Amino acid sequence: MTVAYDGTNYAGWQRQNNGLSIQQLLEDSLFELFGERVTVDASGRTDAGVHAVGQVAAMTLDYEISEERLILAINSKLPADVRVRTLHRCAESFHPQFQAKQKTYRYTYDNAPFPLPQHRLYAAPLHETLDLDAMRRALKTLEGEHDFAALCAVGSSAKTTVRTIYRTDVFRDASDENLVHLVVTGNGFLYNMVRIIAGTAADIGRHRLPEDIFTQAIATGDRTILGMTAPACGLCLMNVSYEEITETEGDQS
Amino acid sequence: MTVAYDGTNYAGWQRQNNGLSIQQLLEDSLFELFGERVTVDASGRTDAGVHAVGQVAAMTLDYEISEERLILAINSKLPADVRVRTLHRCAESFHPQFQAKQKTYRYTYDNAPFPLPQHRLYAAPLHETLDLDAMRRALKTLEGEHDFAALCAVGSSAKTTVRTIYRTDVFRDASDENLVHLVVTGNGFLYNMVRIIAGTAADIGRHRLPEDIFTQAIATGDRTILGMTAPACGLCLMNVSYEEITETEGDQS
Repeated sequence: MTVAYDGTNYAGWQRQNNGLSIQQLLEDSLFELFGERVTVDASGRTDAGVHAVGQVAAMTLDYEISEERLILAINSKLPADVRVRTLHRCAESFHPQFQAKQKTYRYTYDNAPFPLPQHRLYAAPLHETLDLDAMRRALKTLEGEHDFAALCAVGSSAKTTVRTIYRTDVFRDASDENLVHLVVTGNGFLYNMVRIIAGTAADIGRHRLPEDIFTQAIATGDRTILGMTAPACGLCLMNVSYEEITETEGDQS
Repeated sequence: MTVAYDGTNYAGWQRQNNGLSIQQLLEDSLFELFGERVTVDASGRTDAGVHAVGQVAAMTLDYEISEERLILAINSKLPADVRVRTLHRCAESFHPQFQAKQKTYRYTYDNAPFPLPQHRLYAAPLHETLDLDAMRRALKTLEGEHDFAALCAVGSSAKTTVRTIYRTDVFRDASDENLVHLVVTGNGFLYNMVRIIAGTAADIGRHRLPEDIFTQAIATGDRTILGMTAPACGLCLMNVSYEEITETEGDQS
C-alpha cells in the first residue's frame, strides 16, 4: 500500500517507546479490525516530523477481504493526518525495503520575506535571495555512485555508505513561486542525508559555501565543511519505485 | 498591512467573547509592544476556520518607529500561524473596509480518491470526478451586478444584497492536479456567499445540479435550490485591492 502522512505530530515511521509512530497507528488499526497483531513493514524509516505522500508499506493478512473494502476499513481507523492512498495484493515474497530500487525525496523551503503560516508545517523558512542556478549545479555534483559518508549523521548503522543518486533538481513551485523545492532520487539515502543536502544547498544558494563543497566533502569524508541539517518539517518522501533502473535512466541527468 | 493566517485554530478575524480571534492577537501584540490599546480594522471579517494570505488591516499608532522595525516587532509577538507580510504608512483617512474596491477569495477542494493529509487543513475533500467545464460555465453566470440574496446565509445584516462579481475561474493546481481551486473576485461578498458558491459548484461539477442553477437562484431569491455551504477550511482570502475598477476591467470575463 502507499501511505501519506503529515509527520508533524509523530515520532516518525518506526514504532518507538517514547512517541506515537505511523507504523504503530497502522498496526493498531489492523488489530482493531481483525483482532490480530500484524507487522507492517515500510520502504524505510522516516524521522520524527518528516512527511510522506508515497511511503510504501506491506503486511501479510490471513483474511478474505477485497482491496476496496480493506483500504476503506483501515482509513476509517486512522486519524485525519494519516491516509492509505492505494492498496494492492502483492507476492508474499515482496518486501518494501529490500526490493526498493529508487526513492524520491523532496525538500521544500519557504523563500518569502515572511513565511506563509499555511506553509509552516511543510516548508522550512529561508528568506534570503537564493541563487537557484548555483544550487542546481552543486546538486548535479552529487549524481552518480559515491561514498556519501560525509553526508551522514553520526550514529548511523548503515553497512555501507556508498549510494547512487540518479537525479537532482531545484525549482520554484508552479503555483507559489515563494516555495523552492529540492528533489533527489537515489537507490537509497543515509541517515539525515537529504536534510544535510538541503541545508548545504541553502548555504550554496546564499553564496556562503562554494558550489564544489559536495565534491570536497565526498573526497575528504569531512561532514564539518557542509551546512546544517535542515529542519525535518521541510522533508517529504514522495515516491518509492520497485522498477529496475536501466543504464540509460541511471546515467541521465 | 497585509496579514496572512492559518484560520484553523481561530474564531475568525473579529474579536469574540467565546474564542481567540486574529484581530485580538494583533491588538494584544500592539498592546504588549507599546502599552497602548489600539484598534486594528480589517477589510472585512473572515469566519472561524477561514484562512487568509492577503487580508488588509490598518491601525493608528502614535509612535515613532520605522516600518521595517514595526513589522519585525509585531511578528515577534504573534504565534507562527499568523504573520504580518507587508506594512506601509498610509493616509490617516484610510479605512481598509470602506475603501476596498475588490476582494479575491479562493476555495480549494482536494479531488483525490483519498485526500492528502497535508491538504486537510486547507482544502475540503471532494473525491468524485468533476466536470470543470460545467463548473466554469456556471460560475460565469455569476459575473456582473446581481442581487445575491439567495447566496447569503440567514442572519446576515447587510444593508443591500446587490454585489458585483468581476471575475470567476476554476482550475487544477499547477503543481498538484488533485487540488481544484475556485477563484472569485468581486466588490464584496455576503455572509457565507463564497462558501455557498463553492458548495453549489461542487454539485454542478458532479452533475447533481444544472449549470443554470445560479441564474435560477438569483431570479427567484431561493436559497434552498442551491448546494450546501462548503466547509470553512477550503476558503482563503487572497487579496484586497483599493484600485478603482475601470469599465473595461469590470466588463471582461
